[in-house]
Amino acid sequence: MTIVALLQLDLTVGDIVGNAKAIENAVRIAHENDADLAVSSELAISGYPPRDLLEKHGFVRRCLDATNTLHTNIPTIIGSPIPPETERTKPGNGAIRIIPNRPTRVVTQKQLLPTYDVFDEERYFHPDSKPGILRLLNGQCIGVTICEDAWQHAGLVPSDYSVDPIEQLASFSLEGGSLQMSLNLSSSPYHIQKQETRAEVARCAARTLGHPFLLCNQVGGNDDLIFDGRSLVAWPDGKMLQAPAWKEGILLIDTENQSGHFLTLNGNESIDCPLFEGPPPVNNRSLELLEAITIGFRDYCNKSGLESVVLGMSGGIDSAVSAALAVRALGKENVTGISMPSRHSSQHSISDAEDTADKLGIELLSMPIESMHDAADSTLNDELEKGNPVAAENVQSRLRGMLVMGVANARGAMAITTGNKSELAMGYCTLYGDMAGGYSPLGDVWKTEVYELAKTINSEAVSSGNVAPINESTMTKPPSAELAPEQTDQDSLPPYEVLDSILQLHMEEGLDAEAISGFTGLDILLIRDLLRRFSMNEHKRWQMPPAPRVSQRAFGQGWRQPLAAKKD
Amino acid sequence: MTIVALLQLDLTVGDIVGNAKAIENAVRIAHENDADLAVSSELAISGYPPRDLLEKHGFVRRCLDATNTLHTNIPTIIGSPIPPETERTKPGNGAIRIIPNRPTRVVTQKQLLPTYDVFDEERYFHPDSKPGILRLLNGQCIGVTICEDAWQHAGLVPSDYSVDPIEQLASFSLEGGSLQMSLNLSSSPYHIQKQETRAEVARCAARTLGHPFLLCNQVGGNDDLIFDGRSLVAWPDGKMLQAPAWKEGILLIDTENQSGHFLTLNGNESIDCPLFEGPPPVNNRSLELLEAITIGFRDYCNKSGLESVVLGMSGGIDSAVSAALAVRALGKENVTGISMPSRHSSQHSISDAEDTADKLGIELLSMPIESMHDAADSTLNDELEKGNPVAAENVQSRLRGMLVMGVANARGAMAITTGNKSELAMGYCTLYGDMAGGYSPLGDVWKTEVYELAKTINSEAVSSGNVAPINESTMTKPPSAELAPEQTDQDSLPPYEVLDSILQLHMEEGLDAEAISGFTGLDILLIRDLLRRFSMNEHKRWQMPPAPRVSQRAFGQGWRQPLAAKKD
Repeated sequence: MTIVALLQLDLTVGDIVGNAKAIENAVRIAHENDADLAVSSELAISGYPPRDLLEKHGFVRRCLDATNTLHTNIPTIIGSPIPPETERTKPGNGAIRIIPNRPTRVVTQKQLLPTYDVFDEERYFHPDSKPGILRLLNGQCIGVTICEDAWQHAGLVPSDYSVDPIEQLASFSLEGGSLQMSLNLSSSPYHIQKQETRAEVARCAARTLGHPFLLCNQVGGNDDLIFDGRSLVAWPDGKMLQAPAWKEGILLIDTENQSGHFLTLNGNESIDCPLFEGPPPVNNRSLELLEAITIGFRDYCNKSGLESVVLGMSGGIDSAVSAALAVRALGKENVTGISMPSRHSSQHSISDAEDTADKLGIELLSMPIESMHDAADSTLNDELEKGNPVAAENVQSRLRGMLVMGVANARGAMAITTGNKSELAMGYCTLYGDMAGGYSPLGDVWKTEVYELAKTINSEAVSSGNVAPINESTMTKPPSAELAPEQTDQDSLPPYEVLDSILQLHMEEGLDAEAISGFTGLDILLIRDLLRRFSMNEHKRWQMPPAPRVSQRAFGQGWRQPLAAKKD
Repeated sequence: MTIVALLQLDLTVGDIVGNAKAIENAVRIAHENDADLAVSSELAISGYPPRDLLEKHGFVRRCLDATNTLHTNIPTIIGSPIPPETERTKPGNGAIRIIPNRPTRVVTQKQLLPTYDVFDEERYFHPDSKPGILRLLNGQCIGVTICEDAWQHAGLVPSDYSVDPIEQLASFSLEGGSLQMSLNLSSSPYHIQKQETRAEVARCAARTLGHPFLLCNQVGGNDDLIFDGRSLVAWPDGKMLQAPAWKEGILLIDTENQSGHFLTLNGNESIDCPLFEGPPPVNNRSLELLEAITIGFRDYCNKSGLESVVLGMSGGIDSAVSAALAVRALGKENVTGISMPSRHSSQHSISDAEDTADKLGIELLSMPIESMHDAADSTLNDELEKGNPVAAENVQSRLRGMLVMGVANARGAMAITTGNKSELAMGYCTLYGDMAGGYSPLGDVWKTEVYELAKTINSEAVSSGNVAPINESTMTKPPSAELAPEQTDQDSLPPYEVLDSILQLHMEEGLDAEAISGFTGLDILLIRDLLRRFSMNEHKRWQMPPAPRVSQRAFGQGWRQPLAAKKD
């Protein structure tokens, strides 16, 4: 065995037929490029995460049937759900061996079922209790694990499992078995800096096992999860190489000669994948975010059958960055902005929105809300006069939400929301107003990071010979919702640098107010007030659309805060 | 040991101090009524389900501290999370023994952690591996299990666990130990007919164990879950008795003499709880639903600190029933209806809404949407003229959503949505329009059941000497969204009897189109079309507010369908 092909594919959840075709095609290319063995990502045939489709009548059986009838010319390992042994058992999360002219066989089923954060695998799967050993015709033996199975060994799981499948494989070797290499089928979701963690997992396994450890990862977005790809191999000496991120293709690895290259599926480009010994090569953080959100956004639309999007453009930084992201994801001809000035909109906001739309080359509709605003004011007059002033602010935001949805519905497009994570955390946003839309590209991006994205978008444009689309004035003016005269965000929020650092420590590190105050030196009363507002606004986040997950802790699938609970 | 008190309390998630006080108060009353032992529901000190609060820094420790310092005069068993043994372990879901003048002790931790439907317990807890034995000073031994622990034995779990704690307790007896009775601390969420299942679990355990099996259940709503109470005891001879549903109180059981009565906390009423041998006494199904939704609704508002609600009243049956439910939950002075006629509203709709509001005694605001509708039409003119006609219908619905939210925001009230489960399933509703609101009382109620609720509401009113609030015309006219001339629901949907039966078989029994057609004899093409529309509309349900869960399979927490997946 010399050449192993890791099939880094962008698979669609539920599209069994399409995924099977994509796998067959990739195996064929791998074969043409002299691969001896091809390996898919975890649950490749169903796409990951299949969620409740696994409970749909016949789904698991159809997955296995499709896997069993794949046409491949070389030995191939495919991730597939495995029907349960009895009616009273859950299915397995398995790896199937396909060898030409031999019967297909289940090599292993996942032992460690992550059930934290975005993972719900105990809900769907029954765990296996033994390691996977693949025996090839030439007598070679290969260890096979599935994603989380390899993570306990590196201690990189939030709480310990009682089993360590990497140790099991190591014992197999000690007991006289001889493994040439180990494979790991992964669907390992992205968040920023995840690749460092994944490299540690792979190196740790290779070191213990004393042979190469190869990990094939899914690429692309499925709902709120994004997969960066970056399939990889680690050798026991700590050397590694990995596939590029965000690209579909095949990582061809010569395990003996410690070399590899990546063939893209889109254009058959061959990309050299150099060996490295330290941490994996890191992109500029903001460029990385940009790539992650773009692929998540594009896939969400493609896999939903949506070609175009509509968004409100206020002249502020969030909508400017969202528009640029939409153009990156779908192309300028598929993005429509709407400028919806009101009595509180400043002239510079209107012209900033026009400038950005113009420089991005997208259509910009102008729909002043004044006549609707007047009609709404007179209809709601008695209530607004004596009521909470925030009600009047929300009316404007909701009229805009209605217009954006109106254009989207009329055109069969999807409205997107432009709010960021900091606003959502504080409830500094309007349900059914600026929160109206089917996807929230910045919903997991702190406000301070939105500014970094804006700079990166501009410099990317400039370096490809275009005009920077986001005006300097958009980036430097004080953030404002423009829903009341002279309003700025900082009337009711601390500076975003402060806010974001507090929220990040709370959400990602689980620190309480006291600990955050101790760590940052910030005023405990300020922190307590912010955390109280944070927990009070869970009901808004409950109704937010999916957002591509780029942080260690995002709102949405991995977030299960009670709503009607005692808040403190 | 003769008298055991089961503390059937309405606990608030996260309110450790308040829950501790409620428990102390109930134990005091139990003591005054000659109880020898008091038993709480599962996770009583934290309220159930605590969800991610368990991951909040210090939360579990504060729960245990509060439990350990409870003042009780009689031996008491309290459900509490238990801090993990190491930093790398999850907490336990435990039962704590409090005996005056002896140190508190963990009696057991839950072994079977349900992770299906609305349950996510593998996410939060580490399982124990041995049964709980409580040894009292007088030498008596009592078996202790927690909720799901007792369900494997009856086989009433969706997939088998490898352990059966009831069998473990039975072996303890066989090995020379002698158990006088067994206790089960439950937070067993309601759905219709759940009490039959729970009775089967209890009888099955009592029969195997050969001694009384006592189950204490939480009562009241927490988020979308409702708990019916109905704490119970089953004896080995199959006799049972149970506490009333939907009431806070103490079930005092004389285990030897097979008798019991229930003391309500609200008013200290004593309710006799007769023995029965067959299935538990069943309410009228529709009255049962009415009670369940009312308590869920009331608790959601109370526990969110909300006193009043606002809703749109169209003259249709959904909004009429929703208004009546709101009155039941919060009182007529806390409910405001809004009539928002448009150019498509019929006069009978307007007068039906007025009649119902009048008969319920609630305020009804009138806010015609015509002027806003005109302004929106002229603003969106170009788009609506050439676009999908549904866009124009949605505009009206969203203008109404904005008005309802405007009144709610101005008054510090909560808007509620009035849609039913059949509409949500089909997407026959408007995001940010009629779906705008913080709570959806009918979100888990099929349209056909809404009619039954209406009849029950009317007959309840009549039998208490009041006027039936829902007009006959509201109940008999063809359902219509009134968003286009002469529109009725059945222009685009089959009759609701047909639709509901198909959806119920699909959602609750997991049947696919072929199986449903075989079972019902309905046209396979019709069924396929409906199921396709059902799966296409997941993005709307993703953004729906919480709804009280009354069915075996509700949208919301227990529902994890992928959004951007291949739909078929």
